Amino acid sequence: MNIVVLGAGLVGAPMARDLAASTDVHVTVADIDPKALSRVTAMDRIETVKADLADKTVLTRILESADMAISAVPGFMGYATLQTILEAGKDVVDIAFFPEDPFALDALAKERGVTAVVDCGVAPGMSNMLVGHCHRQLDRTDSALIYVGGLPAIRRWPYEYKAVFSPIDVIEEYTRPAFYVENGVLVKRPALSDPEYVDFPGIGTLEAFNTDGLRSLYKTLKIPNMKEKTLRYPGHIEKIAVLRASGFFNTQPIEVNGVKIRPLDVTAKLLFPMWQLDEGEVDITVMKIVVEGEKSGARIRTTWDLVDRYDPQSKIHSMARATGYTATVVARLIGARRFSQKGVIAPEQIGSEPACMTFILEGLAERGVVYRETVEDI
Amino acid sequence: MNIVVLGAGLVGAPMARDLAASTDVHVTVADIDPKALSRVTAMDRIETVKADLADKTVLTRILESADMAISAVPGFMGYATLQTILEAGKDVVDIAFFPEDPFALDALAKERGVTAVVDCGVAPGMSNMLVGHCHRQLDRTDSALIYVGGLPAIRRWPYEYKAVFSPIDVIEEYTRPAFYVENGVLVKRPALSDPEYVDFPGIGTLEAFNTDGLRSLYKTLKIPNMKEKTLRYPGHIEKIAVLRASGFFNTQPIEVNGVKIRPLDVTAKLLFPMWQLDEGEVDITVMKIVVEGEKSGARIRTTWDLVDRYDPQSKIHSMARATGYTATVVARLIGARRFSQKGVIAPEQIGSEPACMTFILEGLAERGVVYRETVEDI
Repeated sequence: MNIVVLGAGLVGAPMARDLAASTDVHVTVADIDPKALSRVTAMDRIETVKADLADKTVLTRILESADMAISAVPGFMGYATLQTILEAGKDVVDIAFFPEDPFALDALAKERGVTAVVDCGVAPGMSNMLVGHCHRQLDRTDSALIYVGGLPAIRRWPYEYKAVFSPIDVIEEYTRPAFYVENGVLVKRPALSDPEYVDFPGIGTLEAFNTDGLRSLYKTLKIPNMKEKTLRYPGHIEKIAVLRASGFFNTQPIEVNGVKIRPLDVTAKLLFPMWQLDEGEVDITVMKIVVEGEKSGARIRTTWDLVDRYDPQSKIHSMARATGYTATVVARLIGARRFSQKGVIAPEQIGSEPACMTFILEGLAERGVVYRETVEDI
Repeated sequence: MNIVVLGAGLVGAPMARDLAASTDVHVTVADIDPKALSRVTAMDRIETVKADLADKTVLTRILESADMAISAVPGFMGYATLQTILEAGKDVVDIAFFPEDPFALDALAKERGVTAVVDCGVAPGMSNMLVGHCHRQLDRTDSALIYVGGLPAIRRWPYEYKAVFSPIDVIEEYTRPAFYVENGVLVKRPALSDPEYVDFPGIGTLEAFNTDGLRSLYKTLKIPNMKEKTLRYPGHIEKIAVLRASGFFNTQPIEVNGVKIRPLDVTAKLLFPMWQLDEGEVDITVMKIVVEGEKSGARIRTTWDLVDRYDPQSKIHSMARATGYTATVVARLIGARRFSQKGVIAPEQIGSEPACMTFILEGLAERGVVYRETVEDI
């Protein structure tokens, strides 16, 4: 089986290595940045292609010999990339976090007879699957609450934040309005809103704020209360809110000394080195999913917890493992024909099939990413 | 007497109006910005000249018919402007807050036989004069502490700050190292360092931090402990420190999408509208000067307090009045030959002459800027 990984970032490279560990899989990684590609060139059995993935003709050619694609491109080029993959008639697992509605491509995917799993990282991704999984097991689901965050183990002022993702995509989370469902009504709220402190055993107090993380969930699942909040160390939100209020995330060009420039581009340039996880730097991925509802007349609360850390053995960051391995395990699921629905697929559609959920939880656990379930009567 | 005011900003315009109130003074205001000049065009008996003051030939021509100049240009062009004024042989009162050492021009000023009072605003300016005044009255001065800040009466998140000065000059205060004198030793500290809370009756708790405000004081006065701290509403410093640490005040150009740009210029462009006092907006100037020492065998503490507010009658901001009227009163002092030392003069040299200090305190009080003295035995 030929799999092409589009994007050789801090998530793309570990995904490629994980896929290539199966002898029946041939992996190609494509990226425009030779420095990014150098992350994988030394790895066994992985082919690299230096290519501009924003160029449709180039991308189409790269996809030709592939059976499946994994899209790990930056969010801003995610939708166009997915469309090209679907037009090429390839199955795809997508972890690009793009603002457009992926279901607009559902008809195309069905027409080409391919499976396109979108938003298939840790959150969105595993969060959706686990909510879908819990929902399926209940007679009536009352609420689903998702807390998720990637953090550096060592807090360094001012941002106390590091990421494996493009900083532009992180800033997107700070500006894109958040949606949640309350009493069956879709509520639109500004990003960074409703900050609250939440204690995580062994981690400490974190600050949670609304983000646009429900994504497909509010369309696919009929749960009257659903909310996703992102976790950061306390104080981070205020600093980001100041930057946002000051216009540093503005995408409207302003004129400075006769030159037109987008403040966001200057900001990304300055913050990128501050937010980038260093090689060997220990990071933590924290996720808590709380689903409440009724089953056989009893009210129960199911909690799924993930507290994952940097793996010093493989030297792969936790956020890269938690995100990337979700995608590679789903890719294996599809490659093994264990899930064969066609069209644009939300992760919760996979999670609501018990056999698939077991396959994925086991696959992740094999890779050291362990989700723990707690069920209580309430 | 012909006085030319260089710079028609929020301080320049009220200075021009104040000077023109004397029938024996003819005032000309020069600025490159027609919008700035429009602040004074409607005023009686004031001539305006639209001119690029950074052009030495242009500036020299404007100075030709003047007896005295008041320099209220932005800090970055302050030194060159002062030099041209001195070369033209004109007395000058300078409120441009420039980083260079003005005393490097002392020989030139003496050679031309002119009086050049530098740093002659509220602080530096009145702060220096009052410290010089107190020092003169004591047998031995142990310490001089200056707290000063200009604030909007209404606090608005995130910065809770507004100014009549160029935002570039305000940012200078946040980046230029601070100097203070401790036990006779000159100590260099980063700007924004040593934040502390200080209560001001009727104003509330403010946060004070080190700034480069002693200026000439540590050269001219032998006081073993001297410190200037700037006042802001609590929380401001942290936000500014985050911007500074993130590189938003950097003056080294960075490349963004193929364009070279100084982050500071982008930042100034974004913050300028947020930091500008609106017409009619109430602002407050707070200054507290505490000088301790010995006199006739007793230890005494002299405190000078200023709490000044926007004047709804004249519609002139407090910071403009407190800064600008210091300069215009000193200009009158020099015009009236009440102070006739030649060379580059630090304000404390004027303040240490009791008759001059009285003239200035009375002149300011007439303009509603009232300093109150408290003397205690300690």
